Amino acid sequence: MQSEITREFIDQIEDAIERRDAEFILSNMEEMYAVDITTVLYELNTEQSKYVMDVLPAEVGAEILSDLDSDVRTNFLKNFTIEEIARYIGEMDSDDAVDLLNEQPVQRKEEIIALLEDQEHVADIIELLHYDEDCAGGLMAKELIKVNLNWRVGQCIEEIRRQAEEVEKVYAIYVVDDRDKLVGRLGMKTLLLSNDHTPISQIYDADVISIESYKDEQEVAAVMQKYDLDAIPVVNIQGRLLGRITIDDVIDVIQEQAELSRQLMTGITENIEEDDSVFRLSRARLPWLMVGMVGGLLGARFIGLFEGDISVIPALAMFTPLITATGGNVGIQSSSIIIQTLANKTILFDNFTSRIVKVLLVAIINGLVMSSLVLGFNLLLGVQVTLSVVVAVALFSVVLLASFMGTVTPMILDKYGVNPAVAAGPFITTANDLLGLAVYFLVAHLLLNL
Amino acid sequence: MQSEITREFIDQIEDAIERRDAEFILSNMEEMYAVDITTVLYELNTEQSKYVMDVLPAEVGAEILSDLDSDVRTNFLKNFTIEEIARYIGEMDSDDAVDLLNEQPVQRKEEIIALLEDQEHVADIIELLHYDEDCAGGLMAKELIKVNLNWRVGQCIEEIRRQAEEVEKVYAIYVVDDRDKLVGRLGMKTLLLSNDHTPISQIYDADVISIESYKDEQEVAAVMQKYDLDAIPVVNIQGRLLGRITIDDVIDVIQEQAELSRQLMTGITENIEEDDSVFRLSRARLPWLMVGMVGGLLGARFIGLFEGDISVIPALAMFTPLITATGGNVGIQSSSIIIQTLANKTILFDNFTSRIVKVLLVAIINGLVMSSLVLGFNLLLGVQVTLSVVVAVALFSVVLLASFMGTVTPMILDKYGVNPAVAAGPFITTANDLLGLAVYFLVAHLLLNL
Repeated sequence: MQSEITREFIDQIEDAIERRDAEFILSNMEEMYAVDITTVLYELNTEQSKYVMDVLPAEVGAEILSDLDSDVRTNFLKNFTIEEIARYIGEMDSDDAVDLLNEQPVQRKEEIIALLEDQEHVADIIELLHYDEDCAGGLMAKELIKVNLNWRVGQCIEEIRRQAEEVEKVYAIYVVDDRDKLVGRLGMKTLLLSNDHTPISQIYDADVISIESYKDEQEVAAVMQKYDLDAIPVVNIQGRLLGRITIDDVIDVIQEQAELSRQLMTGITENIEEDDSVFRLSRARLPWLMVGMVGGLLGARFIGLFEGDISVIPALAMFTPLITATGGNVGIQSSSIIIQTLANKTILFDNFTSRIVKVLLVAIINGLVMSSLVLGFNLLLGVQVTLSVVVAVALFSVVLLASFMGTVTPMILDKYGVNPAVAAGPFITTANDLLGLAVYFLVAHLLLNL
Repeated sequence: MQSEITREFIDQIEDAIERRDAEFILSNMEEMYAVDITTVLYELNTEQSKYVMDVLPAEVGAEILSDLDSDVRTNFLKNFTIEEIARYIGEMDSDDAVDLLNEQPVQRKEEIIALLEDQEHVADIIELLHYDEDCAGGLMAKELIKVNLNWRVGQCIEEIRRQAEEVEKVYAIYVVDDRDKLVGRLGMKTLLLSNDHTPISQIYDADVISIESYKDEQEVAAVMQKYDLDAIPVVNIQGRLLGRITIDDVIDVIQEQAELSRQLMTGITENIEEDDSVFRLSRARLPWLMVGMVGGLLGARFIGLFEGDISVIPALAMFTPLITATGGNVGIQSSSIIIQTLANKTILFDNFTSRIVKVLLVAIINGLVMSSLVLGFNLLLGVQVTLSVVVAVALFSVVLLASFMGTVTPMILDKYGVNPAVAAGPFITTANDLLGLAVYFLVAHLLLNL
């Protein structure tokens, strides 16, 4: 059953661990889902968690390990012997087993594999270890139900019975020919409603969407989402059926992608979480702060060039934050919109020119509205007329320039295979700041005849 | 089959529409997936798309309409008669039908419902219309397979046969008691491997995760993801089975959420896409630009207070961009990290104090590194010693302050039910800018004895 995990429950478990009361732990946890036990473990320290794992049945432990974040798992498993790890891997699906093994040092990985008993499982794992983690082959599991095109329904049901242990959830039955080439699929419903003697060839659906093992995980996610699939068969270049990818793995890909984009946009270089060490958190944040710092120092040198102008009109300095902030805001908005379009790819045949014209039209409207308002305010508040005009003209130019940069940069990055979300990050924001300053002081210098 | 849509294909379709060649269109599109046809329609104008829809069978048209973005669909459907829309709705699952109906003006909605023929379908739709769009009830479909606990396997298979037409994809069979209360589930695999005479009560799985109809869509997504479900039954407060939600609808929720967060962070107020009108794009962007503008003008007034200081040391103005940019960058990084934690909710019992201490430790390290570097650079480049010290001290204070603000603001927003991603947006960035300026000029005023 679903559990509400309370502070009291954690305390009870901690007490039970303290007095080594395995029975209390087992009886309280046997009704819980593995993922809820995982939540409990996150509240315990490593030693306590290890004790709970020792008490729980291996198949539950295997599920818990599969649930853990990769870096948490790597650290946690340092407390386990290779025999213990092999026991858990024996209970895992091949894809989860491979994820875990890939996190182990090479020698330890070999030792663990040598301890595995089920030779079919070992063969599956060794095959999967060949694939890159970020491609379809790296996401797939070998556990699936496949039947031969020449069988009848009865044989097919026998095959499912035989594999029932191994394949936890049957999404679809894949139909292959004598050379193991994927030729179609068979829904459970169709199978259930058919007579035992019906040939598979009469009832199978030849229309099956598959993906090649070398395809990137982003593409797997896109195809599964587009066609609303909850599982997709993976084939090799000759069309031979290799494995299947289920939707839960793909949801993880989608979420990682969203998180990555956010991190890129907010200038964090490593995949960090709040509970990482102070040192790691600092390190992940410093590089982008440095970019901003260098930008700021360059900005200072740049303003320094106009120090003469500022000493004549000190009020000139007042408006630098307005200019840089507007440039930054407009730039990030523009990037956000184009990044969204690039991600969705619903617009197939993009017309570069018409797109830029539109961006500039929007910029002209926004720029006019903002500079008129700023001009009005400044005049009302008694700012010198020429300075007010300088600020308004500079603001308008900055809005135009930042819109253009914010739109074009992600498109260029995307074209060269770089994640365009980078463009919404500190690097471009810093560049926009500098550009804004340049425009402002140049306009001032020209219009004020300084 | 999966189709690669080429410019040539679009051209051929356009020609066929021009010469009203329905047969060409049908024969080219009958093998295509609805979602691929939708991609083609996006490349045609409204009139052309309408012609294609008229040519296609109603069930394909229904799928295409279900695929369309809500605002595109609303506009497109203005070109259809209520009879045509009713025909499509007749082919839709109840959840998609309700989504579409909810976008229609009230009178038109009533008229369309009155035209529907299948009375069971009408009853389902009317029931679903009662639910709020963003809750479990608003996401669910009425199409599901349910069997009585007291039946045997044979009866169960008969029931599936009876409903086979209506329920396109059977994720699971839900088991209810005589009062329609959800008591468990039955996997297709179990059913397939059981004898016709076996009572359901012997083979069903009493362990079923369900969700109440009033629960928020975010919660639905979280539960389905946590427990890796591809469908979840929806029950009312008494536990009666009402409908089911499938994973594809939930993926949409997850993606919308990610997109919304990004938009909030980048200061766009409406749900816009690049192909919206210039006016709409401008309007969605202006509000946040105004916030930034007001912040910039306030900043200008603030710096104005120190105009005397600037006229004594014009170089003081040089470092404002460095200070505001650093405050902005640090603030957005801090927000990003805490927002991620708040979204994951893996940390259950958060200790506010220890969290803030950690944030401040990270800030102290980063602040020290940055101010030392800036101090070093400035001294090397011959900036006045006191001014260099002022900049370093101000920078350090700003890093500390922005880290604190960037962490605490999302936590407070989250506590009061506001999406914390707002905190990474222009509002807080603007506040941080002003705060940075205040710190800088105050430090300068104090240290320089101006």
